[in-house]
Amino acid sequence: MIEVLAKGDAEMSSSVRRVTDHSLQRGVEPENRPDLAALGRGARAAARKVALATAQEKNAALLAMAASVRERMPLILAANAHDMEEAKHEGATEAFLDRLRLDDVRLLAIAQALEEIATLADPVGRITARFERPNGLVIERVATPLGVVAVVFESRPNVMADASALCLKAGNASVLRTGSASFRSAEAIHAALVVGLERAGLPRQAISFVPTRDRAAVGALLSGLEGTIDVIVPRGGKSLVERVQKEARVPVFAHLEGVCHVYVHAGADLGMARDITLNAKLRRTGVCGAAETLLIDRAVAPTHLAPLVKSLLDAGCEVRGDAATLAADHRVTPASETDWEEEYLDAIIACRVVDGLEAAIDHIERHGSHHTDAIVTQDRAAAERFLCEVDSAIVLHNASTQFADGGEFGFGAEIGIATGRMHARGPVGVEQLTSFKYRIRGAGQIRA
Amino acid sequence: MIEVLAKGDAEMSSSVRRVTDHSLQRGVEPENRPDLAALGRGARAAARKVALATAQEKNAALLAMAASVRERMPLILAANAHDMEEAKHEGATEAFLDRLRLDDVRLLAIAQALEEIATLADPVGRITARFERPNGLVIERVATPLGVVAVVFESRPNVMADASALCLKAGNASVLRTGSASFRSAEAIHAALVVGLERAGLPRQAISFVPTRDRAAVGALLSGLEGTIDVIVPRGGKSLVERVQKEARVPVFAHLEGVCHVYVHAGADLGMARDITLNAKLRRTGVCGAAETLLIDRAVAPTHLAPLVKSLLDAGCEVRGDAATLAADHRVTPASETDWEEEYLDAIIACRVVDGLEAAIDHIERHGSHHTDAIVTQDRAAAERFLCEVDSAIVLHNASTQFADGGEFGFGAEIGIATGRMHARGPVGVEQLTSFKYRIRGAGQIRA
Repeated sequence: MIEVLAKGDAEMSSSVRRVTDHSLQRGVEPENRPDLAALGRGARAAARKVALATAQEKNAALLAMAASVRERMPLILAANAHDMEEAKHEGATEAFLDRLRLDDVRLLAIAQALEEIATLADPVGRITARFERPNGLVIERVATPLGVVAVVFESRPNVMADASALCLKAGNASVLRTGSASFRSAEAIHAALVVGLERAGLPRQAISFVPTRDRAAVGALLSGLEGTIDVIVPRGGKSLVERVQKEARVPVFAHLEGVCHVYVHAGADLGMARDITLNAKLRRTGVCGAAETLLIDRAVAPTHLAPLVKSLLDAGCEVRGDAATLAADHRVTPASETDWEEEYLDAIIACRVVDGLEAAIDHIERHGSHHTDAIVTQDRAAAERFLCEVDSAIVLHNASTQFADGGEFGFGAEIGIATGRMHARGPVGVEQLTSFKYRIRGAGQIRA
Repeated sequence: MIEVLAKGDAEMSSSVRRVTDHSLQRGVEPENRPDLAALGRGARAAARKVALATAQEKNAALLAMAASVRERMPLILAANAHDMEEAKHEGATEAFLDRLRLDDVRLLAIAQALEEIATLADPVGRITARFERPNGLVIERVATPLGVVAVVFESRPNVMADASALCLKAGNASVLRTGSASFRSAEAIHAALVVGLERAGLPRQAISFVPTRDRAAVGALLSGLEGTIDVIVPRGGKSLVERVQKEARVPVFAHLEGVCHVYVHAGADLGMARDITLNAKLRRTGVCGAAETLLIDRAVAPTHLAPLVKSLLDAGCEVRGDAATLAADHRVTPASETDWEEEYLDAIIACRVVDGLEAAIDHIERHGSHHTDAIVTQDRAAAERFLCEVDSAIVLHNASTQFADGGEFGFGAEIGIATGRMHARGPVGVEQLTSFKYRIRGAGQIRA
């Protein structure tokens, strides 16, 4: 799951990057800049080989990559120590350092994640439709790899391994660009991964690493590296995703933010509404599926509003409310218009009373981010209408928004959650990293 | 099916456009230019209404649109006569005029096409996956509309009706931009369509027409009209598709060209190879699924090459060949390197002897356009390898490439054929004009 940085951390992240880039750029002469178009062409050529690799070959490579990470733990930890030292020196926050830090346990978890991806079903070659035509032609739609996936990530070294392994499993080559702060860690992990690839007989360019901290490299990736990149996946804070969505000349799988809603409908059971609201907001506040706004139907406000607000406040959550919510508890602070569109990623929730189902749906369509939204109700007809009319990647009835996660969907690992309407939507796992083609078998048919 | 204009016609098309635009631009003052962003916002707002319309409501609208086209035949024919007169005056070719021309029969066919689209199954709301999780959550993936589809087309007035009707059936709003030469015809058809929409209670902005011949409008569409366009479908010649693919800032469903191959493998039956080759090349030479290159395996060249080449030549097809093909028949002319990548769209074929299956696949990957490619063989293993390794939208075994058509796939009407690897690939019918979301039903589940 993409975990968006809290705002303060995102700012720290960019300030760390700025300082680092500045110190680096002095040393990067134009003629020393890596040839990124050549990197893209290498990935494209490798993609064709990986696309034709069998499930067995890809899984052998994933296991060899895991073994190589285990073997090279001292090298990777040394590189990470260097990154950590630099980040501390530049004043990174504790939260930032925690995301950057590797240790034995975390590295073993990275190796295990590779081994788990090897156990997933192969997404390539799945037959997703099959029909026979009156003339006897048998047409199958079969899953094929997408090609070359570029992943642009920030400060979490594990993404280097997770993302490239998911791409490989789906028969894709990947091009990875890390944030400056995790450059040495990602480079060391990359070196381990390509050893595994080569041991398994796959080309090292199938996992290509952008070998520079030069920020211009991101622009080159976003332009598609002369047609060699098929899709870009940004993994990081809002400013990164925003830049990628704005500048990319190739498709992007991402969500900018998760302004997720819990709507307590007139037919909601109070106990269930309380459990779901507390879980959706507070289980983890920093994930994209965390609820940010609570909508309560006017019909049940007299009975449900005060207890729900009290539960949130008692659990340590700040509540910013409309007039009705303010009247329900003296600890509520007034919400401004911007609160309805705020992704707090923190123990803060906006709360509003709405005039029925249609008003709730209107509020979500106007202020939401098409990520994940839930209705709590015992009224099946109202639930169906909500599930039908709310145009979000994930819509839930009587369940917490925190289920917005590829693992919870049974997809295994995921490379992120997408809110676009093209190709991938919701959790992006290995199946979503494939395309398809039509395979037609005949017996000499010609067209009249 | 998208029928790409023959080169000469495409050039004529742009010269017609140039002259017309010049004469028009004198009359278009900047302050009279339509507000295209407002047009996009109108379409976006209408898209939400159409997305929620029932199958019954959409089909009623399609039937009302057909009725309205029938009622307004005199108005549409008068507008078309005006377009025809202008095009003739500007020296358009007979082929160009034939595409532009409407008459009673063609207009009735347009109305019937609308009625046929009404009979297709509703693509919205289809459940394309369903799984129950161990915690009892039931997750469904359900088809939803894409949003707003922009269609940019040239000189064929029927596209105005076909394309907007397919978009409507899939719950999308459409924004249509016609080429200059068919402006009055398309405008008159549009007027008929919106009468039908309104009679059925759907918003007229669900089918929005760009009311200017100003070429700057195309640029505005390609930029996405301030985020209101979700996907662009170009319908016309290569120069149009090329411009759209190059400049569009939103996804495009299209193919630039169809350089389609027939590969006669070592295990091919000569009679079947002859039937398929002649049909693939000559049934209709102007369609994108027409074969442009014939590859013959060296193993069967002694027996198959001369008869196949003779059949083509006898049928009036020009054959441009490599040395082996030249030696097979004195009427063969030499092929140059560019012939392997040429989309003739005419009775011309390039022919080459290749050293086996792998060389054939390599040739297709290097020179093809990932559109439609066929192998002829009785060797099942060779066929499977071809079907697996050739990365084209449509791959066939023992069948003509001319089956590259949504109707032949059983999709009903199609808006075009796409060769990209994202979202839509191969024939783009109503199902391919949808997106999806995840619908989750619970009983109060919260996440641990």
